[in-house]
This record gives sequence, structure tokens and C-alpha cells, in this order.
Amino acid sequence: MDDVRLCRTFQTAPAAVPKDDSAKYLRSGLTAEGFQAPDWLVPDMEDGTAPNMKDEGLENTIELVPEYEFPGEIWPRVEWSYEDASFRDRGREQIDQLVAGIGDEIDGVVVPKVGRLEDVERAEGVIAEIESEHGYEEGSIGMSIIVETGRARSDLRKISKFGGESRLVALVFGPVDYAAELGARDLGDGHPRWDGLLEELSNEASAGDLLSIGGPFDDLFKQRAGLTYYNADDYAAQVEHEAHLGLDGSWSLYPKQTIQANTVHMPNEEELERDVSKIERFNAAKAEGTGAVTLDGQMVDEATFKVFRNTVQQVRSIHATRPEQTEEYYDEGLLGRTLELDLSYR
Amino acid sequence: MDDVRLCRTFQTAPAAVPKDDSAKYLRSGLTAEGFQAPDWLVPDMEDGTAPNMKDEGLENTIELVPEYEFPGEIWPRVEWSYEDASFRDRGREQIDQLVAGIGDEIDGVVVPKVGRLEDVERAEGVIAEIESEHGYEEGSIGMSIIVETGRARSDLRKISKFGGESRLVALVFGPVDYAAELGARDLGDGHPRWDGLLEELSNEASAGDLLSIGGPFDDLFKQRAGLTYYNADDYAAQVEHEAHLGLDGSWSLYPKQTIQANTVHMPNEEELERDVSKIERFNAAKAEGTGAVTLDGQMVDEATFKVFRNTVQQVRSIHATRPEQTEEYYDEGLLGRTLELDLSYR
Amino acid sequence: MDDVRLCRTFQTAPAAVPKDDSAKYLRSGLTAEGFQAPDWLVPDMEDGTAPNMKDEGLENTIELVPEYEFPGEIWPRVEWSYEDASFRDRGREQIDQLVAGIGDEIDGVVVPKVGRLEDVERAEGVIAEIESEHGYEEGSIGMSIIVETGRARSDLRKISKFGGESRLVALVFGPVDYAAELGARDLGDGHPRWDGLLEELSNEASAGDLLSIGGPFDDLFKQRAGLTYYNADDYAAQVEHEAHLGLDGSWSLYPKQTIQANTVHMPNEEELERDVSKIERFNAAKAEGTGAVTLDGQMVDEATFKVFRNTVQQVRSIHATRPEQTEEYYDEGLLGRTLELDLSYR
Repeated sequence: MDDVRLCRTFQTAPAAVPKDDSAKYLRSGLTAEGFQAPDWLVPDMEDGTAPNMKDEGLENTIELVPEYEFPGEIWPRVEWSYEDASFRDRGREQIDQLVAGIGDEIDGVVVPKVGRLEDVERAEGVIAEIESEHGYEEGSIGMSIIVETGRARSDLRKISKFGGESRLVALVFGPVDYAAELGARDLGDGHPRWDGLLEELSNEASAGDLLSIGGPFDDLFKQRAGLTYYNADDYAAQVEHEAHLGLDGSWSLYPKQTIQANTVHMPNEEELERDVSKIERFNAAKAEGTGAVTLDGQMVDEATFKVFRNTVQQVRSIHATRPEQTEEYYDEGLLGRTLELDLSYR
Repeated sequence: MDDVRLCRTFQTAPAAVPKDDSAKYLRSGLTAEGFQAPDWLVPDMEDGTAPNMKDEGLENTIELVPEYEFPGEIWPRVEWSYEDASFRDRGREQIDQLVAGIGDEIDGVVVPKVGRLEDVERAEGVIAEIESEHGYEEGSIGMSIIVETGRARSDLRKISKFGGESRLVALVFGPVDYAAELGARDLGDGHPRWDGLLEELSNEASAGDLLSIGGPFDDLFKQRAGLTYYNADDYAAQVEHEAHLGLDGSWSLYPKQTIQANTVHMPNEEELERDVSKIERFNAAKAEGTGAVTLDGQMVDEATFKVFRNTVQQVRSIHATRPEQTEEYYDEGLLGRTLELDLSYR
Repeated sequence: MDDVRLCRTFQTAPAAVPKDDSAKYLRSGLTAEGFQAPDWLVPDMEDGTAPNMKDEGLENTIELVPEYEFPGEIWPRVEWSYEDASFRDRGREQIDQLVAGIGDEIDGVVVPKVGRLEDVERAEGVIAEIESEHGYEEGSIGMSIIVETGRARSDLRKISKFGGESRLVALVFGPVDYAAELGARDLGDGHPRWDGLLEELSNEASAGDLLSIGGPFDDLFKQRAGLTYYNADDYAAQVEHEAHLGLDGSWSLYPKQTIQANTVHMPNEEELERDVSKIERFNAAKAEGTGAVTLDGQMVDEATFKVFRNTVQQVRSIHATRPEQTEEYYDEGLLGRTLELDLSYR
């Protein structure tokens, strides 16, 4: 009952960069602490890594991931394209090596530039085949997709339905390629937020019991009066907008972004106090055995109870992987009550 | 030709409340007069009525509805859930008793928390079965659904297509459960308006020849400088936004809301005058027999004519059930012309 | 590789008007010069031409089109309706006469008021039949549709998929009929922009390799302080909004609108300079043969290259039909570089 899948933060890290330590960013993600530690770390072998460093990126990933005890999930992003078989061939090779090398350590792979349902099924088939070849149980290697083509959005409802019965875990928005595919013009004020798409992404994730994750935000820094500083405001606005629409998490490119996305996508003190105390009062009333339970003038049916319980389960899931975050963020007494609560409705 | 289905107002009334007269709100809806009288009265046996009063709510409904000559439509809301069979069992029992007891008096039932198309078809099947068991003609008990789950929105296009060939009458938005299902966070400024969903609801209703109805607005009152007063502004803004997007009606929780939704969703004096006079001039030109008719420099083809006619038919439908509203709202001469007009194109 | 289909401007012209020269507007569209010349000229036999002049409009079109060397595309709009067979009969007759008379001169026909996928397929079947009867090669007569009914939007994803494999070329928005079909109310501030629909139109066009075109804007003039003047601001705002969402072109009702839409929907000097110089630098680096190419710190993969190339190809397509526009708009040196560039990735 406590099994809530978390992805407040989808942090990509280039798997190899042209620096002395080519695994600098990957290592930094794997060792991040406190609120800088993401729920998902995504070693990026696709657009984040240069073509001539992709092999090294794959090696870095296979070598480094087992070296550290990363408490979150590991989801390498491989190459793929609905319109180019050479990308799919490289993607298959990357998945094969990842599963062969660190199949026990990764939670799944992130597949970019998928097209219509058939292409998503094709990617799923590749993972299934490789998983089985290397002796892993069916479904042990998950799949997440980047929604960044007209075709993927066109088929999103079918993909969501397929997702409800398959290894699909998350729908992640990819605005850069999406805008390019649609020929969206930046006439000086950037690109649209694509609110219609975000609403749909949130809806289809809910319909298919999937996670939904927003796109990257790359205006990392601002300049004013000679000073360059981290653009905390605009990223927070995007993350809050995503939470407002029911997306489960946000894309992070940078440790400070991870702090912000982790924070916005967890229940705040007030929300947690409210839902914990509702369940406590519900449990007390239930113990008195007077039949249906009323709280604050409202009857608590199973659906209402589930909403309270969801808050508690989410905090427990965060606590299970990142106790330093919950301990820093919540009052000690409240956290204790959260962890002790009986969550059964009947 | 005059048969335009009306639902400017979808007014829910708890079927039983813990008061001396447990049918207080139901009775008040059934006896409302003037602009406080809704087009649809929805005795609510679902979320509006406490679990321990649901039986009494059903009894109240079966007892009271035949007692009054309610000129609008009666649409009890029963229990249902795409994800919980016990809710569906109770819903089936409620529908059975309603049809057995007052099958002649109700126009249909409102089914909440439907899921994908298959679940909507399942609900439709339950109604069909009960209708036939009690000897009613096929289709005499209508069905409306609350769109409040990710699955229902995901399948909305299929549901609309199914609706075009079935007993489905209206698509009603349910924002509270919808926001909870999607995990939408209220970060201090409430929930989104879900404009993408509203546009789709309006479109799919049109595509399936269904009615589309907005969601409830529960900030009934405002406080300022010590005074608590009815929040007329914000509700009107919501209703106008819904009308702007082509929704046919709005949800009302309260007699003053009913006044406002009834008013916004009927043609205003200027619109009626414009369309009545267009038809009058069209009829005069037609009588002269000079071929195609031009009005204000525009040719009147059948599609254009239908737009004018629709305004007139809507006012006639309101007049048929609520003459006190049309007589109060429109100039006597204009109303007379509206009722007399020949509406045939050829 | 240079074959980019252009439709920056979809300019409708009534095929016949009650004036001394009933083909006045058609002739003016066919002979327009400079930036007033549209990419597509649409002789309108539907709503733009009065019922009693439709035969004359058809004759005008068949007579005038071959008289002029119009460098853009010719797309007559015929009559059609998903809900009225008499419109479809007239449409079939119009298509038949157009193909018989000027099948070599037209690029396709524009079909309005289509409904669900089945209706779009029916229209496509009519064109296929007529095309074959008159001995034209399959696919030589294209089809574009006006999206202006709830049914067409409801089936847009299926229509886009069908479009990817058929003679369908463009999806054009028709807001006037759309608002009427949905019953959208103008409560004093006009109609919505239908942003959800526009986002979808852009997406589905991309998913089906189709063009997407915005709807007409008919507030051609403004009045202020006694002066009536062309409403340049509001039309530009609409066109820029459409470009921002990735629509390929805009609807024009008037030569000045054509100037504006042609201008907004072509790459500006800065965009062209940027992409031309990227390709020049890419080609130079490729010639040095040092493997993967980096520009401005970013690796240029095939997908990135395609984005640059697309800008160049679009300008080449404009130059091929309207050299006076490119020569006026771009610096001579830049245009020369644009036309000379080697566009192969490998």
C-alpha cells in the first residue's frame, strides 16, 4: 500500500563531457546530497553527450553506477528516433550493453523522439527482447519516453492506454525538439508553454497510471547590473505551474534546480499536517465504531480517504530514499506521526 | 423542429440532509419559482448526501418528485465508480429503485466517476437492463455523465461518438475529483480552470449532439469589511467563460447561482431581436419570390438560417417550461413575435 | 531535397461578386505583385460567393485561371457539408467542372464543413473518382480541408493519420462556423482564440506531414477620431500568434493582410543569417574531416542540421515562386549565399 512511485526530479547528466574527468557531471549526480539529490538520475547518452563521446559516456555509466549507492532511481537516456533507423540501432546497442553490464542497477531506460504508438511498441519490444536475452524477469527494465514529436502527442491517448498495461513508467515532455518539429517560431518572446499539451500529459499519465514530468528549463542564469546569478524565480514559476496542472515532477539540469523541484513537488508542512490529522481523527472516530465518519462537516468516503493517504504515502516514499530531506523539511513530531499512522480505510 | 434540449442550469440538491426536514433542499429545488427555477434538478445521492443518509435520500426522491409538478427535467445523481465495484452495485440498486418508483417522472440518471469508454458502456448497459425490466420503452431513461477522471477525458472522443448513438444526453465537468485524480496541487491560488478540457468538452458535446455543462463553483460567499455576501461576480465570470466556449449550461449549487446561470445561458434581448428580425425579413423576401435572399449584404443560406432559428427555438423551449422567465426577461412585443414566427427555410 | 511546400498565405477571393466585373477580386488576386502576391490563391465558390452567382463564379474561375501565369498555387474552395447531401452534390459538380476545365492549372480543391473521418474519406473518394475519370494521374488533384465542425476536431488525430497517406495537403481553421456549431456566445468581447484547437491543429499537421493554416480575420478596418484605417496591429498579432504555435500560414482576405502574413511566415534576416552561417561553418569543418562537428559548443547531429536546412529550403521555395519578395526582403549577399549552399549532411 505504501508503494508510491516518486519522480519529483528527473535530473539529466551528460554521460561524458570533454573535461579531464569526462564523468564529472555523472559522478556529481551520483554523489549529490540533501535536497540536491534527485529522485531520478538520468545519465544522458543522447543530446547531452557529443557524438564522438557517446561510447565513453556508455562506459562511464556502466563503470560508475555500481560504484555508488545511489538511493534514487537510475534511468539512462539512450538514442532513438521514430524516423531514423540508425538512431534506433545505436539505441538497441546501448540498451543491450546497459542491461548486460548494469541490468541490476538501472530501473529502466529513457527513450527519446518516439513517434506514434507503433514506434513506442517497437521500443518496448526491443527492451523486452534484451531483458529476456540477459535473463531478467519480464518488466524488470522499465521504459520512459520523451514526448517531443507531433506523432507522439497525436497518439498520446493510445500510448497512455498501452502504458497502463506495459513497462511504461513516465511521460516526459521535450519542448525543444517539439517546437522544432512543429516549426514553432521564436519571434522574440521565446516559445509557448504548450499548456494544451501539458494538460494532456497530466491527464494521460493519470489515465494510464503513469508519471508525468515537465520539460527542461535552460535559462539557468540571469544577468543584472554586472552580476550573473542563478535564475531561481523563473524556474520555480515553471515547476509550480507544472505542479498546479498535476504533473508529478520536473526536469532538472542543475543541482540548484533539483533543490527547487524536489521542494515544490513534495507536500508542504501545512498539507501534510492537514492530511495526517484528518487520518488521525478518522482513525479515532473509526475506533469508536459509530458508523460513517464525518470530519469538518464532510463525510469521509474511501475516495476522500485516498487523497489524504496519498499525501502520507508520498512523504513515506521520500523518507525511504532520502531521509535527510524529510528530516530537514518537516517538524520532527509531524514526521513521526506521518510514519506511524495506520493507513487502512476499513 | 422546435425540440431543443435545454439545460442552462444543472442544479444539484442533496437528497437528504441532517435537518428536521431531511428533504429541505430537494423540496426547495422542486418548488423554486421565477429565475430561481433550474432547467434540470439533480437530486444528489452521491457526494452531496452523507453515506448514512443515502437510503433516506433515495426515499425522499421517490416520495417527493411525484408530489410536485416540476416543469423542468429531473435527473437524480446515483453512485458509481470506474474503479470500485461496490459503488457500481449501489448505483445499480439506486437506479433500479428510481425506475421502479418514479420511472415516469425522471428524465434520466447522472452517473459520476466514469472511466474509459468501456465503463460508460457498462453504465449504459445497466440502465438499459433496468429500463427494460420495468417495462419502459428503450431510451426513455436518459444518461448523463460527470467527466472527472483522467480515463474519461482520455476517451472523450470515443464517448462522444458513442453518445451520438445512445441514451447519453450530457457531459458534465467535475473539477474537484478531476484535480484530485491528476494530483493537481493547490499552491495558494486554487486550481486551474482546465481550459483545454473545457474546450474539448464543448467540442465533443457538439460532435456527439450532446449538452455540455460546466463544473460547480463553491466559493458561494465572500467576506469584506465585516460583511459576508453572495459572491455574484466570480460565479458570473465562470458562467460567462463557459458560455463563451460554447458550453450549454452551468452547474448551480444555490438558488442565486441558478438565477445567474439561467440568465447568462439564454439569448439576451439584443440577440433575440437581431435573429427574430432577420427571420422576419427573410420570410418577407421569400414571399416576394425573387430567389436567393440577401440580408445586410449577406446571402442567407440554410446554415446561416439555422443559427438564427436556433436562437428562436431556444427561447421557445424556455417559454414552454418557464413562461414566467421569458415574460419577465423579454419585451412583450418581441416575445410575441418570437412565438409566432414561421421557421421553415423553404 | 529542396521540395518544401509553402503556404504562408491562404488568400480567398470571391469567385463572383455583383459588380460590373464579377471577377474583380479573383483577377486582382491572380495579378497581385510583390508582397501582395499570396502563396495560395483560393477562388471561393462557397461562403464568399452568393448562391445566385455561384455558377458565374465557377465560370470565372475556369476562364480566368489559365489566362494568367500565377506563380503560386491555385486551390478553389467548393461547396460541401457533412450534414447536407445537396451541398455535397453541388461540390461534386463543381469539382468535376474544375478538373474537366482546368485540371492542369489547379493544385487541388479546398473542402469546407467536413465532419468525422468518414466524411473526409468520402470527399477524398469524390476527388479520386473525378481525377481518374478525366485521365489525371492519381494524386495530381490535392485536397485541403477547413476544420470548422465539432466532428472534424473530434476526429482530427485520425484525419491527420489518414492525411499522411493520402492527397490531403492542409488543415485550415474555420472559426466562424466552428463557433456557431459549438454555440459559443459572443458576450461583448468576441469569440475565444481557441488556443487548444490551434495547438492541436499545429500538432496534427506536423504528425501527418500536412500544412496548418489559421482562420480568417475580418476586422479589416478600425475607426478613430474620424479616420478609418487598415487594422494592421490586430491582424499582425493574430499571424504572429499562429507562427508562434507552429502554424505554417495564415488566412488572408485582403492584399494588405497578404503582405503581413507573407512577411511574418518567412524567416527574417537574422534567422536566415544564423542558419546559413551555421551550415557554412558546418560544411567548412566537414571539409577538414575531423569527425563530429561542433558549432558554438554544440554538436551538430542530423536532427539539428535539418532545422538549419529547413530555413534555407523555405527561402529557396519562396525564391523559386516569388523572387521579387526574397530580393526585396533579404540582403543581396545573404540571398546569394542561401541559394548556393551545399545542403547535404554527409
